[in-house]
Amino acid sequence: MALKLHGIPVSTCTTRVLACAYEKGLEIEIVPVNLLAGEHKTPDFLATKNPFGQIPVLEDGDLSLFESRAINKYIATKYKDQGTDLLREGDPKEAALVGVWLEVEAQHYNPAVGDLVYELVIRPMHGGATREEVVKAESEKLGKVLDVYEARLSKTKYLAGDFFSLADLHHLPYTYYMMKTAKKDLIESRPHVKAWWEELVSRPAVKKAVAGMTLV
Amino acid sequence: MALKLHGIPVSTCTTRVLACAYEKGLEIEIVPVNLLAGEHKTPDFLATKNPFGQIPVLEDGDLSLFESRAINKYIATKYKDQGTDLLREGDPKEAALVGVWLEVEAQHYNPAVGDLVYELVIRPMHGGATREEVVKAESEKLGKVLDVYEARLSKTKYLAGDFFSLADLHHLPYTYYMMKTAKKDLIESRPHVKAWWEELVSRPAVKKAVAGMTLV
Repeated sequence: MALKLHGIPVSTCTTRVLACAYEKGLEIEIVPVNLLAGEHKTPDFLATKNPFGQIPVLEDGDLSLFESRAINKYIATKYKDQGTDLLREGDPKEAALVGVWLEVEAQHYNPAVGDLVYELVIRPMHGGATREEVVKAESEKLGKVLDVYEARLSKTKYLAGDFFSLADLHHLPYTYYMMKTAKKDLIESRPHVKAWWEELVSRPAVKKAVAGMTLV
Repeated sequence: MALKLHGIPVSTCTTRVLACAYEKGLEIEIVPVNLLAGEHKTPDFLATKNPFGQIPVLEDGDLSLFESRAINKYIATKYKDQGTDLLREGDPKEAALVGVWLEVEAQHYNPAVGDLVYELVIRPMHGGATREEVVKAESEKLGKVLDVYEARLSKTKYLAGDFFSLADLHHLPYTYYMMKTAKKDLIESRPHVKAWWEELVSRPAVKKAVAGMTLV
């Protein structure tokens, strides 16, 4: 039975899961959720899919999961013996470092890049003006995180070591939209980060996943 | 060889790791870091412990890890056969739900409770005044998250199911400080959340971990 993903391909968090599934060589059935009609806020969606009213939601038989990062850890664990080895659980030290850099993405990188993409891409779509002071503050925050990445990536090819992992992959969707804005210089001005990013988006699974990211 | 934890017992994120280690029945050596002297921002600390200049940092032999949530997953995995079963990896569905609620803590609960504790506890300690508009906004955010928790905990005893897990434990340290402030009503006004919290802080490992949380 195929995995079912309730979401839409233009969504960052939906794309995060698609990229993981494709790295695993999985087919995944996308069940569109009509956000404009508020389908993710209906009593049924909140009760049976995600009480926080967000996409994506994965259904695997009678198991229903939300939060894209948790979904990806589930997929990477369940299908650990096929496709790309995303969690490196065969080596406890490598797995521990994947864990560290997964948290760095979630706790340091995402808050800044998420706010930047909201401000530069999402807010204008809803008729709001981009607030330059927010862009400035979040760019500074993200720049500091990327300074750490630049130093790290001058020593190892990927964030957790010399192997691609889920920690790298989780950076994909917000960064992808940011790279369509003027703030792409945050990546391009740092040579090791730039090389890491170009490597990431050249992966076949990633190319397939971002094909639906047509918001920008 | 004992695990070494660079941190201080009054720190929220240090406590998060201590509680996990104690649930596993582990002894852990605390190596104090002098935050007032800026020891966590020295070139040596940044180069060898944590490039983000934060505590705690775990050392296990020659492996050095930062980010409290990643450290806990490492400990819970390495010592999976002793103490409390925090990740439930013996049952893939239970493990997946632990993963979901770990992300809910990290992505929904922590941003709001972290800002609240900063505003009510940390800012005044540094001579700043609590900004009531921030308290109001973050209380509203946290209240919405806790409404979801109240509904969830009316169906299952703990967040991921009828078993205690790392997902519950990760809520401990910030909530512990919040419960020393006027905003404890956010927990106490919701009967199932209140019962869950009281159960959590009555655990012997948790009592041992919070003994050093003397900031408030």
